[in-house]
Amino acid sequence: MTAPDHIVRSFDNQLKALSQIVTRMGGLAETQLATAVDALKRRDSDLAEQVVRGDAAIDALEEELGERAVRLLALRQPMATDLREVIAALKISSDVERIGDYAANVAKRVMALNQIPPIPPANGVPRMARLAQNIIKDTLDAYATRDAELAIDVWHRDAEVDEMYTGLFRELLTYMMEDPRNITPSTHLLFVAKNIERIGDHATNVAETIHYLVTGQRMAGGRPKGDTTSFQVIEPTANTADGGKTKEP
Amino acid sequence: MTAPDHIVRSFDNQLKALSQIVTRMGGLAETQLATAVDALKRRDSDLAEQVVRGDAAIDALEEELGERAVRLLALRQPMATDLREVIAALKISSDVERIGDYAANVAKRVMALNQIPPIPPANGVPRMARLAQNIIKDTLDAYATRDAELAIDVWHRDAEVDEMYTGLFRELLTYMMEDPRNITPSTHLLFVAKNIERIGDHATNVAETIHYLVTGQRMAGGRPKGDTTSFQVIEPTANTADGGKTKEP
Repeated sequence: MTAPDHIVRSFDNQLKALSQIVTRMGGLAETQLATAVDALKRRDSDLAEQVVRGDAAIDALEEELGERAVRLLALRQPMATDLREVIAALKISSDVERIGDYAANVAKRVMALNQIPPIPPANGVPRMARLAQNIIKDTLDAYATRDAELAIDVWHRDAEVDEMYTGLFRELLTYMMEDPRNITPSTHLLFVAKNIERIGDHATNVAETIHYLVTGQRMAGGRPKGDTTSFQVIEPTANTADGGKTKEP
Repeated sequence: MTAPDHIVRSFDNQLKALSQIVTRMGGLAETQLATAVDALKRRDSDLAEQVVRGDAAIDALEEELGERAVRLLALRQPMATDLREVIAALKISSDVERIGDYAANVAKRVMALNQIPPIPPANGVPRMARLAQNIIKDTLDAYATRDAELAIDVWHRDAEVDEMYTGLFRELLTYMMEDPRNITPSTHLLFVAKNIERIGDHATNVAETIHYLVTGQRMAGGRPKGDTTSFQVIEPTANTADGGKTKEP
Protein backbone atom coordinates (compact mmCIF):
# COMPACT_ATOMS: atom_id res chain seq x y z
CA MET A 1 0.00 0.00 0.00
CA THR A 2 1.41 3.36 -0.99
CA ALA A 3 0.19 6.47 0.77
CA PRO A 4 -1.26 9.25 -1.38
CA ASP A 5 1.21 11.96 -2.37
CA HIS A 6 -0.26 14.72 -0.22
CA ILE A 7 0.03 12.55 2.91
CA VAL A 8 3.68 11.77 2.19
CA ARG A 9 4.35 15.48 1.63
CA SER A 10 2.60 16.45 4.84
CA PHE A 11 4.60 13.84 6.78
CA ASP A 12 7.85 15.17 5.33
CA ASN A 13 6.83 18.66 6.34
CA GLN A 14 6.11 17.51 9.85
CA LEU A 15 9.53 15.86 10.09
CA LYS A 16 11.12 19.04 8.76
CA ALA A 17 9.25 21.07 11.37
CA LEU A 18 10.73 18.88 14.12
CA SER A 19 14.20 19.36 12.74
CA GLN A 20 13.69 23.12 12.53
CA ILE A 21 12.63 23.31 16.17
CA VAL A 22 15.78 21.43 17.17
CA THR A 23 17.90 23.83 15.14
CA ARG A 24 16.17 26.83 16.69
CA MET A 25 16.68 25.43 20.17
CA GLY A 26 20.34 24.83 19.41
CA GLY A 27 20.80 28.38 18.17
CA LEU A 28 19.16 29.76 21.30
CA ALA A 29 21.31 27.60 23.58
CA GLU A 30 24.45 28.70 21.75
CA THR A 31 23.47 32.35 22.21
CA GLN A 32 22.56 31.80 25.85
CA LEU A 33 26.01 30.43 26.61
CA ALA A 34 27.74 33.21 24.65
CA THR A 35 25.71 35.87 26.47
CA ALA A 36 26.33 34.30 29.88
CA VAL A 37 30.07 34.33 29.25
CA ASP A 38 29.85 37.89 27.97
CA ALA A 39 28.10 38.82 31.21
CA LEU A 40 30.95 37.14 33.10
CA LYS A 41 33.65 39.03 31.22
CA ARG A 42 31.87 42.39 31.43
CA ARG A 43 30.57 41.77 34.97
CA ASP A 44 27.13 42.70 33.67
CA SER A 45 24.34 41.47 35.96
CA ASP A 46 21.55 42.79 33.74
CA LEU A 47 22.86 40.72 30.89
CA ALA A 48 23.11 37.71 33.22
CA GLU A 49 19.52 38.17 34.30
CA GLN A 50 18.47 38.29 30.68
CA VAL A 51 20.04 34.85 30.22
CA VAL A 52 18.27 33.46 33.29
CA ARG A 53 14.95 34.71 31.93
CA GLY A 54 15.75 33.54 28.39
CA ASP A 55 15.91 29.87 29.38
CA ALA A 56 12.11 29.60 29.35
CA ALA A 57 12.06 29.98 25.55
CA ILE A 58 14.22 26.87 25.13
CA ASP A 59 12.06 24.92 27.58
CA ALA A 60 8.92 25.91 25.70
CA LEU A 61 10.39 24.75 22.39
CA GLU A 62 11.37 21.42 23.91
CA GLU A 63 7.83 20.95 25.12
CA GLU A 64 6.41 21.85 21.72
CA LEU A 65 8.78 19.44 20.02
CA GLY A 66 7.86 16.67 22.46
CA GLU A 67 4.17 17.09 21.73
CA ARG A 68 4.67 17.16 17.98
CA ALA A 69 6.95 14.11 18.07
CA VAL A 70 4.47 12.09 20.09
CA ARG A 71 1.61 13.02 17.75
CA LEU A 72 3.75 12.03 14.80
CA LEU A 73 4.71 8.70 16.36
CA ALA A 74 1.16 7.90 17.37
CA LEU A 75 -0.58 8.95 14.15
CA ARG A 76 1.99 8.19 11.49
CA GLN A 77 3.80 5.12 12.81
CA PRO A 78 7.04 6.07 11.09
CA MET A 79 9.53 3.29 10.38
CA ALA A 80 13.29 2.98 9.81
CA THR A 81 14.92 6.29 8.85
CA ASP A 82 11.84 8.38 9.62
CA LEU A 83 11.53 6.82 13.04
CA ARG A 84 15.21 7.56 13.64
CA GLU A 85 14.57 11.21 12.68
CA VAL A 86 11.84 11.58 15.27
CA ILE A 87 13.78 9.82 18.02
CA ALA A 88 16.90 11.84 17.22
CA ALA A 89 14.94 15.10 17.42
CA LEU A 90 13.58 14.07 20.84
CA LYS A 91 17.00 13.08 22.16
CA ILE A 92 18.83 16.11 20.82
CA SER A 93 16.19 18.50 22.12
CA SER A 94 16.57 16.99 25.57
CA ASP A 95 20.36 17.52 25.49
CA VAL A 96 19.98 21.04 24.14
CA GLU A 97 17.46 21.86 26.86
CA ARG A 98 20.08 20.77 29.41
CA ILE A 99 22.69 22.94 27.72
CA GLY A 100 20.29 25.85 28.13
CA ASP A 101 19.88 25.02 31.83
CA TYR A 102 23.65 25.04 32.32
CA ALA A 103 23.98 28.37 30.52
CA ALA A 104 21.35 29.82 32.86
CA ASN A 105 23.26 28.38 35.83
CA VAL A 106 26.41 30.11 34.60
CA ALA A 107 24.45 33.37 34.46
CA LYS A 108 23.25 32.93 38.05
CA ARG A 109 26.83 32.46 39.23
CA VAL A 110 27.82 35.61 37.35
CA MET A 111 25.28 37.54 39.39
CA ALA A 112 26.95 36.31 42.59
CA LEU A 113 30.45 36.99 41.25
CA ASN A 114 29.52 40.56 40.37
CA GLN A 115 28.94 41.34 44.03
CA ILE A 116 32.58 40.72 44.92
CA PRO A 117 35.92 41.84 43.48
CA PRO A 118 37.09 39.99 40.35
CA ILE A 119 39.77 37.29 40.60
CA PRO A 120 42.34 36.44 37.91
CA PRO A 121 41.33 32.81 37.15
CA ALA A 122 38.07 34.20 35.77
CA ASN A 123 39.97 34.67 32.51
CA GLY A 124 40.44 30.97 31.93
CA VAL A 125 36.69 30.38 32.00
CA PRO A 126 35.85 32.37 28.84
CA ARG A 127 38.56 30.44 26.96
CA MET A 128 36.95 27.18 28.03
CA ALA A 129 33.52 28.54 27.13
CA ARG A 130 34.71 29.56 23.67
CA LEU A 131 35.80 25.97 23.05
CA ALA A 132 32.40 24.69 24.21
CA GLN A 133 30.62 27.24 22.01
CA ASN A 134 32.57 26.09 18.93
CA ILE A 135 31.66 22.51 19.74
CA ILE A 136 27.97 23.42 20.01
CA LYS A 137 28.14 25.39 16.75
CA ASP A 138 29.78 22.55 14.84
CA THR A 139 27.40 20.04 16.35
CA LEU A 140 24.48 22.07 15.06
CA ASP A 141 26.15 22.25 11.64
CA ALA A 142 26.60 18.49 11.70
CA TYR A 143 22.89 18.14 12.45
CA ALA A 144 21.85 20.58 9.73
CA THR A 145 23.98 18.84 7.09
CA ARG A 146 23.57 15.32 8.53
CA ASP A 147 27.37 15.07 8.62
CA ALA A 148 28.54 12.02 10.59
CA GLU A 149 32.22 12.87 10.11
CA LEU A 150 31.81 16.30 11.64
CA ALA A 151 29.87 14.69 14.48
CA ILE A 152 32.82 12.38 15.18
CA ASP A 153 35.18 15.35 15.03
CA VAL A 154 33.29 17.46 17.59
CA TRP A 155 32.85 14.40 19.76
CA HIS A 156 36.64 14.06 20.02
CA ARG A 157 37.13 17.76 20.68
CA ASP A 158 35.23 17.61 23.94
CA ALA A 159 38.41 16.10 25.42
CA GLU A 160 39.95 19.59 25.20
CA VAL A 161 37.11 21.04 27.24
CA ASP A 162 37.66 18.37 29.87
CA GLU A 163 41.38 19.11 29.94
CA MET A 164 40.77 22.82 30.39
CA TYR A 165 38.33 22.09 33.16
CA THR A 166 40.90 19.94 34.96
CA GLY A 167 43.43 22.77 34.67
CA LEU A 168 40.95 25.32 35.98
CA PHE A 169 39.92 23.05 38.84
CA ARG A 170 43.54 22.83 40.01
CA GLU A 171 44.13 26.54 39.50
CA LEU A 172 41.02 27.54 41.43
CA LEU A 173 41.77 25.24 44.35
CA THR A 174 45.30 26.56 44.58
CA TYR A 175 43.93 30.07 44.43
CA MET A 176 41.54 29.34 47.29
CA MET A 177 44.45 28.08 49.35
CA GLU A 178 46.39 31.30 48.90
CA ASP A 179 43.83 33.55 50.56
CA PRO A 180 40.49 32.79 52.24
CA ARG A 181 39.00 35.81 50.50
CA ASN A 182 39.41 33.95 47.23
CA ILE A 183 37.27 31.05 48.37
CA THR A 184 33.80 32.42 47.60
CA PRO A 185 34.59 33.74 44.11
CA SER A 186 36.64 30.64 43.31
CA THR A 187 33.80 28.36 44.37
CA HIS A 188 31.36 30.16 42.08
CA LEU A 189 33.89 30.02 39.23
CA LEU A 190 34.38 26.33 39.91
CA PHE A 191 30.66 25.79 39.40
CA VAL A 192 30.73 27.97 36.27
CA ALA A 193 33.54 25.81 34.87
CA LYS A 194 31.70 22.64 35.91
CA ASN A 195 28.58 23.85 34.08
CA ILE A 196 30.59 24.41 30.92
CA GLU A 197 32.20 21.00 31.26
CA ARG A 198 28.70 19.49 31.44
CA ILE A 199 27.68 21.48 28.36
CA GLY A 200 30.55 19.81 26.52
CA ASP A 201 29.28 16.39 27.62
CA HIS A 202 25.79 17.12 26.35
CA ALA A 203 27.23 18.32 23.04
CA THR A 204 29.00 14.96 22.69
CA ASN A 205 25.67 13.23 23.40
CA VAL A 206 24.19 15.23 20.52
CA ALA A 207 27.12 14.23 18.30
CA GLU A 208 26.49 10.56 19.14
CA THR A 209 22.82 10.93 18.28
CA ILE A 210 23.67 12.59 14.95
CA HIS A 211 26.06 9.78 14.13
CA TYR A 212 23.34 7.23 14.84
CA LEU A 213 20.80 9.24 12.87
CA VAL A 214 23.00 9.44 9.79
CA THR A 215 24.64 6.01 9.82
CA GLY A 216 22.19 3.88 11.80
CA GLN A 217 25.20 2.76 13.86
CA ARG A 218 26.16 3.61 17.39
CA MET A 219 29.55 5.25 17.64
CA ALA A 220 32.29 2.68 18.10
CA GLY A 221 35.04 2.86 20.67
CA GLY A 222 34.41 5.37 23.37
CA ARG A 223 36.40 7.84 25.31
CA PRO A 224 35.83 8.18 29.03
CA LYS A 225 33.73 11.31 29.14
CA GLY A 226 33.58 13.92 31.76
CA ASP A 227 35.12 15.10 34.90
CA THR A 228 38.37 13.44 36.01
CA THR A 229 38.70 16.02 38.80
CA SER A 230 36.14 13.98 40.77
CA PHE A 231 39.11 11.87 41.78
CA GLN A 232 41.61 14.67 42.34
CA VAL A 233 43.26 15.61 45.56
CA ILE A 234 45.09 18.91 45.73
CA GLU A 235 46.93 19.85 48.89
CA PRO A 236 48.18 23.28 49.91
CA THR A 237 51.66 23.96 48.42
CA ALA A 238 54.61 26.01 49.65
CA ASN A 239 53.16 28.95 47.75
CA THR A 240 49.96 28.94 49.71
CA ALA A 241 49.12 30.23 53.13
CA ASP A 242 49.58 26.85 54.69
CA GLY A 243 52.84 25.63 53.16
CA GLY A 244 51.81 22.03 52.49
CA LYS A 245 52.50 19.99 49.39
CA THR A 246 50.80 19.17 46.12
CA LYS A 247 49.71 15.59 45.67
CA GLU A 248 47.99 13.98 42.78
CA PRO A 249 46.65 10.44 43.10
CA MET B 1 -14.12 -0.65 15.79
CA THR B 2 -13.18 -2.63 18.88
CA ALA B 3 -9.90 -4.48 18.98
CA PRO B 4 -10.05 -8.24 19.65
CA ASP B 5 -9.60 -9.20 23.29
CA HIS B 6 -6.16 -10.77 22.94
CA ILE B 7 -4.78 -7.57 21.36
CA VAL B 8 -6.13 -5.43 24.19
CA ARG B 9 -4.62 -7.83 26.72
CA SER B 10 -1.27 -7.83 25.01
CA PHE B 11 -1.26 -4.03 24.92
CA ASP B 12 -2.04 -3.86 28.63
CA ASN B 13 0.79 -6.26 29.29
CA GLN B 14 3.16 -4.12 27.29
CA LEU B 15 2.14 -1.02 29.26
CA LYS B 16 2.64 -2.95 32.48
CA ALA B 17 6.08 -4.02 31.32
CA LEU B 18 7.04 -0.37 30.81
CA SER B 19 5.83 0.53 34.25
CA GLN B 20 7.77 -2.38 35.76
CA ILE B 21 10.99 -1.27 34.10
CA VAL B 22 10.50 2.22 35.54
CA THR B 23 9.94 0.76 39.00
CA ARG B 24 13.04 -1.42 38.69
CA MET B 25 15.11 1.55 37.58
CA GLY B 26 13.82 3.57 40.52
CA GLY B 27 14.69 0.80 42.96
CA LEU B 28 18.20 0.57 41.54
CA ALA B 29 18.71 4.33 41.71
CA GLU B 30 17.50 4.40 45.32
CA THR B 31 19.99 1.64 46.21
CA GLN B 32 22.80 3.34 44.32
CA LEU B 33 22.36 6.53 46.32
CA ALA B 34 22.10 4.63 49.61
CA THR B 35 25.26 2.66 48.82
CA ALA B 36 27.18 5.77 47.74
CA VAL B 37 26.33 7.48 51.03
CA ASP B 38 27.24 4.31 52.92
CA ALA B 39 30.60 4.38 51.15
CA LEU B 40 30.98 8.00 52.23
CA LYS B 41 30.22 7.27 55.86
CA ARG B 42 32.40 4.15 56.01
CA ARG B 43 35.12 5.63 53.78
CA ASP B 44 34.87 2.47 51.71
CA SER B 45 36.34 2.94 48.23
CA ASP B 46 35.48 -0.59 47.07
CA LEU B 47 31.86 0.08 47.80
CA ALA B 48 32.11 3.40 45.97
CA GLU B 49 33.60 1.68 42.95
CA GLN B 50 30.75 -0.79 42.99
CA VAL B 51 28.32 2.13 42.70
CA VAL B 52 30.27 3.64 39.78
CA ARG B 53 30.13 0.30 37.96
CA GLY B 54 26.48 -0.25 38.90
CA ASP B 55 25.28 2.79 36.96
CA ALA B 56 25.46 0.88 33.67
CA ALA B 57 22.51 -1.32 34.72
CA ILE B 58 20.26 1.73 35.07
CA ASP B 59 21.42 3.09 31.71
CA ALA B 60 20.70 -0.24 30.04
CA LEU B 61 17.17 -0.32 31.48
CA GLU B 62 16.51 3.21 30.26
CA GLU B 63 17.59 2.20 26.77
CA GLU B 64 15.39 -0.89 26.86
CA LEU B 65 12.44 1.16 28.05
CA GLY B 66 13.01 3.74 25.31
CA GLU B 67 12.98 1.08 22.61
CA ARG B 68 9.86 -0.58 23.97
CA ALA B 69 8.06 2.76 24.31
CA VAL B 70 8.86 3.78 20.76
CA ARG B 71 7.67 0.42 19.40
CA LEU B 72 4.49 0.77 21.40
CA LEU B 73 3.88 4.31 20.17
CA ALA B 74 4.60 3.40 16.57
CA LEU B 75 2.65 0.15 16.40
CA ARG B 76 -0.21 0.71 18.81
CA GLN B 77 -0.98 4.41 18.47
CA PRO B 78 -2.15 4.70 22.06
CA MET B 79 -4.49 7.57 22.92
CA ALA B 80 -5.49 9.54 26.01
CA THR B 81 -4.63 7.71 29.25
CA ASP B 82 -2.56 5.02 27.55
CA LEU B 83 -0.52 7.61 25.70
CA ARG B 84 0.04 9.42 29.00
CA GLU B 85 1.29 6.16 30.51
CA VAL B 86 3.89 5.72 27.79
CA ILE B 87 5.04 9.34 27.89
CA ALA B 88 5.20 9.28 31.69
CA ALA B 89 7.33 6.13 31.63
CA LEU B 90 9.73 7.79 29.16
CA LYS B 91 9.97 10.99 31.21
CA ILE B 92 10.34 9.28 34.57
CA SER B 93 12.98 6.90 33.25
CA SER B 94 14.99 9.85 31.99
CA ASP B 95 14.86 11.53 35.42
CA VAL B 96 15.70 8.28 37.20
CA GLU B 97 18.64 7.72 34.87
CA ARG B 98 19.93 11.16 35.89
CA ILE B 99 19.47 10.29 39.56
CA GLY B 100 21.63 7.24 38.91
CA ASP B 101 24.28 9.45 37.28
CA TYR B 102 24.36 11.74 40.29
CA ALA B 103 24.65 8.77 42.68
CA ALA B 104 27.64 7.55 40.65
CA ASN B 105 29.13 11.06 40.80
CA VAL B 106 28.79 10.98 44.59
CA ALA B 107 30.63 7.67 44.62
CA LYS B 108 33.48 9.12 42.54
CA ARG B 109 33.89 11.98 45.01
CA VAL B 110 33.95 9.46 47.86
CA MET B 111 36.94 7.81 46.21
CA ALA B 112 38.78 11.15 46.23
CA LEU B 113 37.72 11.94 49.80
CA ASN B 114 39.04 8.59 51.03
CA GLN B 115 42.56 9.59 50.04
CA ILE B 116 42.63 12.43 52.56
CA PRO B 117 41.73 12.78 56.24
CA PRO B 118 38.01 13.11 57.04
CA ILE B 119 36.49 16.50 57.88
CA PRO B 120 33.55 17.12 60.23
CA PRO B 121 31.02 18.64 57.77
CA ALA B 122 30.95 15.23 56.07
CA ASN B 123 28.31 14.29 58.66
CA GLY B 124 25.76 16.75 57.32
CA VAL B 125 25.84 15.12 53.90
CA PRO B 126 24.39 11.74 54.95
CA ARG B 127 21.52 13.57 56.67
CA MET B 128 20.78 15.41 53.46
CA ALA B 129 21.08 12.17 51.50
CA ARG B 130 18.63 10.40 53.83
CA LEU B 131 16.08 13.08 53.09
CA ALA B 132 16.64 12.66 49.35
CA GLN B 133 16.36 8.87 49.68
CA ASN B 134 13.00 9.17 51.44
CA ILE B 135 11.80 11.46 48.69
CA ILE B 136 12.85 8.97 46.02
CA LYS B 137 11.22 6.11 47.92
CA ASP B 138 7.92 7.94 48.33
CA THR B 139 8.00 9.10 44.73
CA LEU B 140 8.30 5.48 43.60
CA ASP B 141 5.43 4.56 45.91
CA ALA B 142 3.38 7.36 44.38
CA TYR B 143 4.14 5.94 40.94
CA ALA B 144 3.31 2.36 41.96
CA THR B 145 -0.03 3.38 43.49
CA ARG B 146 -0.75 6.22 41.05
CA ASP B 147 -1.14 8.51 44.07
CA ALA B 148 -1.29 12.19 43.04
CA GLU B 149 -1.57 13.38 46.65
CA LEU B 150 1.62 11.63 47.66
CA ALA B 151 3.31 13.08 44.57
CA ILE B 152 2.35 16.60 45.69
CA ASP B 153 3.63 15.82 49.17
CA VAL B 154 7.09 14.66 48.06
CA TRP B 155 7.26 17.55 45.63
CA HIS B 156 6.93 19.98 48.55
CA ARG B 157 9.46 18.10 50.65
CA ASP B 158 12.28 18.81 48.22
CA ALA B 159 12.37 22.31 49.75
CA GLU B 160 13.98 20.73 52.84
CA VAL B 161 16.72 19.22 50.72
CA ASP B 162 17.37 22.63 49.20
CA GLU B 163 17.51 24.20 52.66
CA MET B 164 19.97 21.61 53.92
CA TYR B 165 22.10 22.17 50.83
CA THR B 166 22.18 25.90 51.47
CA GLY B 167 23.26 25.25 55.06
CA LEU B 168 25.98 22.84 53.97
CA PHE B 169 27.20 25.24 51.30
CA ARG B 170 27.73 27.95 53.90
CA GLU B 171 29.27 25.53 56.38
CA LEU B 172 31.71 24.14 53.84
CA LEU B 173 32.81 27.55 52.60
CA THR B 174 33.41 28.73 56.16
CA TYR B 175 35.32 25.54 56.80
CA MET B 176 37.53 26.17 53.78
CA MET B 177 38.29 29.64 55.08
CA GLU B 178 39.51 28.30 58.40
CA ASP B 179 42.34 26.23 56.99
CA PRO B 180 43.62 25.77 53.44
CA ARG B 181 44.00 22.04 54.11
CA ASN B 182 40.20 21.88 54.33
CA ILE B 183 39.76 23.21 50.81
CA THR B 184 40.17 20.02 48.79
CA PRO B 185 37.93 17.80 50.94
CA SER B 186 35.38 20.62 51.30
CA THR B 187 35.26 21.11 47.54
CA HIS B 188 34.57 17.42 46.96
CA LEU B 189 31.89 17.46 49.68
CA LEU B 190 30.39 20.55 48.07
CA PHE B 191 30.01 18.63 44.82
CA VAL B 192 28.60 15.63 46.72
CA ALA B 193 25.99 17.89 48.31
CA LYS B 194 25.28 19.53 44.95
CA ASN B 195 24.71 16.12 43.38
CA ILE B 196 22.21 15.24 46.11
CA GLU B 197 20.48 18.58 45.65
CA ARG B 198 20.11 17.77 41.94
CA ILE B 199 18.75 14.32 42.82
CA GLY B 200 16.03 16.08 44.80
CA ASP B 201 15.20 18.24 41.77
CA HIS B 202 14.85 15.20 39.54
CA ALA B 203 12.64 13.51 42.13
CA THR B 204 10.34 16.55 42.00
CA ASN B 205 10.28 16.25 38.20
CA VAL B 206 9.14 12.66 38.64
CA ALA B 207 6.47 13.81 41.11
CA GLU B 208 5.22 16.34 38.55
CA THR B 209 5.03 13.65 35.89
CA ILE B 210 3.10 11.33 38.22
CA HIS B 211 0.67 14.11 39.01
CA TYR B 212 0.10 14.68 35.31
CA LEU B 213 -0.21 10.96 34.66
CA VAL B 214 -2.86 10.49 37.34
CA THR B 215 -4.88 13.69 36.98
CA GLY B 216 -4.17 14.77 33.41
CA GLN B 217 -3.37 18.21 34.87
CA ARG B 218 -0.04 19.93 35.26
CA MET B 219 0.76 20.81 38.84
CA ALA B 220 -0.51 24.27 39.72
CA GLY B 221 1.48 26.90 41.52
CA GLY B 222 5.16 26.23 41.60
CA ARG B 223 7.94 26.65 44.03
CA PRO B 224 11.25 28.02 42.85
CA LYS B 225 13.27 24.83 42.58
CA GLY B 226 16.90 24.29 43.13
CA ASP B 227 20.01 25.95 44.24
CA THR B 228 19.71 29.37 45.83
CA THR B 229 23.41 29.26 46.74
CA SER B 230 24.16 30.23 43.13
CA PHE B 231 23.57 33.76 44.29
CA GLN B 232 25.36 33.54 47.64
CA VAL B 233 28.40 35.43 48.69
CA ILE B 234 30.19 34.33 51.84
CA GLU B 235 33.16 36.29 53.09
CA PRO B 236 35.76 35.19 55.61
CA THR B 237 34.62 35.93 59.18
CA ALA B 238 36.54 36.85 62.31
CA ASN B 239 36.74 33.11 63.09
CA THR B 240 38.61 32.34 59.91
CA ALA B 241 42.24 32.72 59.02
CA ASP B 242 41.62 36.03 57.35
CA GLY B 243 39.36 37.85 59.77
CA GLY B 244 36.95 39.33 57.25
CA LYS B 245 33.20 39.57 57.57
CA THR B 246 30.17 37.55 56.55
CA LYS B 247 27.93 39.09 53.96
CA GLU B 248 24.81 37.75 52.41
CA PRO B 249 23.22 39.51 49.46
